[in-house]
Amino acid sequence: AFSQDIDHILETQSALAVDLGGTNLRVAIVSMRGKIMKKYCKPNPKTYESRIQLILSMCEDALQDAVRLNCRILGVGVSTGGRVNPQEGVILHSTKLIQEWSSVDLRTPLSDTLHLPVWLDNDGNCAALAERKFGHGQGVENFVAIITGTGIGGGIVHHHELVHGSTFCAGELGHIMVSLDGPECTCGSRGCVEAYASGVALQREAKRLHDEDLLSLEGVELKKVEAVSAVHLISAARQGNTNAQAVLKTASTALGVAVVNILHMMNPSLVILSGVLASYYQSPIQDIISQRALVSSQSIKVVTSDLEEPALLGAASMVLDYSTRRTY
Amino acid sequence: AFSQDIDHILETQSALAVDLGGTNLRVAIVSMRGKIMKKYCKPNPKTYESRIQLILSMCEDALQDAVRLNCRILGVGVSTGGRVNPQEGVILHSTKLIQEWSSVDLRTPLSDTLHLPVWLDNDGNCAALAERKFGHGQGVENFVAIITGTGIGGGIVHHHELVHGSTFCAGELGHIMVSLDGPECTCGSRGCVEAYASGVALQREAKRLHDEDLLSLEGVELKKVEAVSAVHLISAARQGNTNAQAVLKTASTALGVAVVNILHMMNPSLVILSGVLASYYQSPIQDIISQRALVSSQSIKVVTSDLEEPALLGAASMVLDYSTRRTY
Ligand SMILES: [Ca+2]
Ligand SMILES: [Ca+2]
Ligand SMILES: [Zn+2]
Ligand SMILES: [Zn+2]
Repeated sequence: AFSQDIDHILETQSALAVDLGGTNLRVAIVSMRGKIMKKYCKPNPKTYESRIQLILSMCEDALQDAVRLNCRILGVGVSTGGRVNPQEGVILHSTKLIQEWSSVDLRTPLSDTLHLPVWLDNDGNCAALAERKFGHGQGVENFVAIITGTGIGGGIVHHHELVHGSTFCAGELGHIMVSLDGPECTCGSRGCVEAYASGVALQREAKRLHDEDLLSLEGVELKKVEAVSAVHLISAARQGNTNAQAVLKTASTALGVAVVNILHMMNPSLVILSGVLASYYQSPIQDIISQRALVSSQSIKVVTSDLEEPALLGAASMVLDYSTRRTY
Repeated sequence: AFSQDIDHILETQSALAVDLGGTNLRVAIVSMRGKIMKKYCKPNPKTYESRIQLILSMCEDALQDAVRLNCRILGVGVSTGGRVNPQEGVILHSTKLIQEWSSVDLRTPLSDTLHLPVWLDNDGNCAALAERKFGHGQGVENFVAIITGTGIGGGIVHHHELVHGSTFCAGELGHIMVSLDGPECTCGSRGCVEAYASGVALQREAKRLHDEDLLSLEGVELKKVEAVSAVHLISAARQGNTNAQAVLKTASTALGVAVVNILHMMNPSLVILSGVLASYYQSPIQDIISQRALVSSQSIKVVTSDLEEPALLGAASMVLDYSTRRTY
């Protein structure tokens, strides 16, 4: 009977998870075991006011559904792009991917309206938290999570805890520079790994090849340049297109060199890749490590994540870990 | 009388510090207050056997002098090039700068012969420990020490403790790559910051310019190419030699980009530079930070060390901290 009670509590204790990305605003009800009970998705509004309003209304809808689903919501966890002060619940600074999203106190309006405790951190750090609680990072003392999607983000776990740094700017893995010059980055610098290997960077190169009529694809007719994406680049490379192969080689090398830089700085035992390009990059990263890492850090493992929603699960894990610990 | 006793204990409690570099083997008696009471220096032998013998005989001489100097030696601290497992007291792997110095248990022969506890770590980590105990790092929660000499090393302090990583390969700051290709490095990779900005790298470029008759220096006649060094390069640049200026610009940019990479990964509040090139590099690094670092990590301070002997003081600090704590 006791173990049944525990099971029941574990099944009903849940979190609201919010994920604020460059494109979408998503909310989910996540159980203690990491099951996504229900998920909501809308385009992320372009202004601060309408964004806050939409977060609140989506959360209120989810809270009503949670009652019907027999989920007891312990709090709200938010994953967002940009630099975050998780102690104050403030978004310090965002790049242009999310507009009107710098110096924003997100905790106060959410907790005032929803009457729930609110935690937040950036998307990369949330991906790492998700791995620590539900993924390959469980029980691993030192690991790094890298998420390659539209941009590149990540989080560093050292002695089982996230590294936030002195001004909450640690783990900004997309802005590790792998070139003294290199392509321009959204952050204002050049040569960042994000400007070489992110989905946006690959799309930029794919469009360039398409413009120059160098991205021919068997059985595919690309009329509109807008439709060209990283997927076409990868397909073309697999069909033997040497231009596409060269672009992907540079992107993979850039990401591999960034990973080796992480090894030489933090020396984790595990690197976990997530995002749409994770499976593509895994093997080239391993190659670059064997070519360019110090002997003492060759033993590192590079794996791809098994989690379908790292940002949402990581956002939920802040609620599930902290509210049951009763400390913050 | 009590405070006098404490003063007396602090003055007599001391450490033997050993520094194993590519050129020299040095031993020092270091007081609890960080004063170097006596220092010994010999060329570092090329073989394992003669190196161990020389360390032991220099330490035995120092122990005799310590008695005369009224210094009570609590233990031996060793700073060495290469990757070190400080828990086991083993040098895991060294580059060719120090030969026959991989998979070496240094603790056992030293403690067996000298009958003292022995601590060791690599030179970069010792530089960081020296700053933590005696330098600008005192009381600073998160900082990074970078030492630019023949090579480039460093150590990362996070939550007041050194970061060693999963295979003792953390803080290998000289092997942060800032280029996908770039000059060859002693580690076997290319584009490491050490291959751009170390003393050896600058000397390589100075010799190249000298060979091509491009390193003219007012009032200096350089006959032998062996005598050409980083110092000449810096002098030539100050006299307006554009070739020398270009080389130093690239070196400074490389080191600045490596520092920004550290900021984006660990986000320390302070970067401490030491070594012969520290004062030269301080201002260009600050420039690169303002040009290329994320807004949230612009507040970082870059300072040059006040310590004359970071490696020896760091080696001593392991003895002075651990033997008085009575834990390891
Ligand atoms: Ca992050
Ligand atoms: Ca180090
Ligand atoms: Zn960037
Ligand atoms: Zn190297």
